[in-house]
Amino acid sequence: MKRIAIDMDEVIADAENRFFEWYEKDYGIKIPMEKLHCRHFPEIVDEQHMTIVKKYPWKEGFFKDLGVIKGSQEVISELVKKYEIFITTAAMEFPNSLVHKLEWLNKYFPYISWQNIVFCGDKSIIHADYMIDDSVRHFKRFTGQGILFTAPHNINVDWNPRVNSWKEVGDMFL
Amino acid sequence: MKRIAIDMDEVIADAENRFFEWYEKDYGIKIPMEKLHCRHFPEIVDEQHMTIVKKYPWKEGFFKDLGVIKGSQEVISELVKKYEIFITTAAMEFPNSLVHKLEWLNKYFPYISWQNIVFCGDKSIIHADYMIDDSVRHFKRFTGQGILFTAPHNINVDWNPRVNSWKEVGDMFL
Repeated sequence: MKRIAIDMDEVIADAENRFFEWYEKDYGIKIPMEKLHCRHFPEIVDEQHMTIVKKYPWKEGFFKDLGVIKGSQEVISELVKKYEIFITTAAMEFPNSLVHKLEWLNKYFPYISWQNIVFCGDKSIIHADYMIDDSVRHFKRFTGQGILFTAPHNINVDWNPRVNSWKEVGDMFL
Repeated sequence: MKRIAIDMDEVIADAENRFFEWYEKDYGIKIPMEKLHCRHFPEIVDEQHMTIVKKYPWKEGFFKDLGVIKGSQEVISELVKKYEIFITTAAMEFPNSLVHKLEWLNKYFPYISWQNIVFCGDKSIIHADYMIDDSVRHFKRFTGQGILFTAPHNINVDWNPRVNSWKEVGDMFL
């Protein structure tokens, strides 16, 4: 059975939207989603707010009850019938994220066993046939096939294969 | 650079001793360490206590500030100069362990980057050349070389190579 490693943030969990929420709450400024084109959130705010915004992911609660990326639940519930599915997320950078990420997975992907969840840093440690991720840096030393999941920040990144939605993941694997 | 994956409990962290501590605190019974020969702790207590004792690792604080296995700090501080060292622990089974395990690593192994820490379940996801672990079950689907680290529960397990101490790990790799 082939194995697929699937990232969390910007692939199944909408962490980017948490930036928009917290920024509006802290500064009363509602930034249009379109501004994110080719960039990460801290790059699109006023320069004076940048340092604080960059630290959001380290703050308690940032990863708590994030939105679910459209289609991920349905497609992954089919993928588990044909592939070994592992959720592989670089959570170690954000110690406050660990418990919230695990709770989130148990809530939205209850059919993924704790055996198949990996919190790591450098993803070259992952042994899998495919890796679906929004960051090509994780593909550099990965021995399987990296598949770039489109997110606003990676629109102009050159990588093939790329998938633009969970529908496209389903078309590729099912 | 070759990569070594190193387990935590019973390899660098003394989780077994926490069983002895908590059991004595709960029941006032001090069990001699020798009784552990070829067995895990819940197997050596009175049958009426077994169910509660088995659940200890799921309770808050079980993995907090465990003792350090003798020699591990010194040898690993040398290993990192010649090998890529990853700490790979099946922490996902025990959600309450996540934060305590990370704090413990930062305290006792501050030179191990968050990039090189992996909390997982099924260790067949680990891509490494060697894995030092006290459970042979993790070696079954591992594509590298499993090295059994002696612990009371695995004394009679048939596996080669086996190391009995961190001194022996040093002799093997340095």
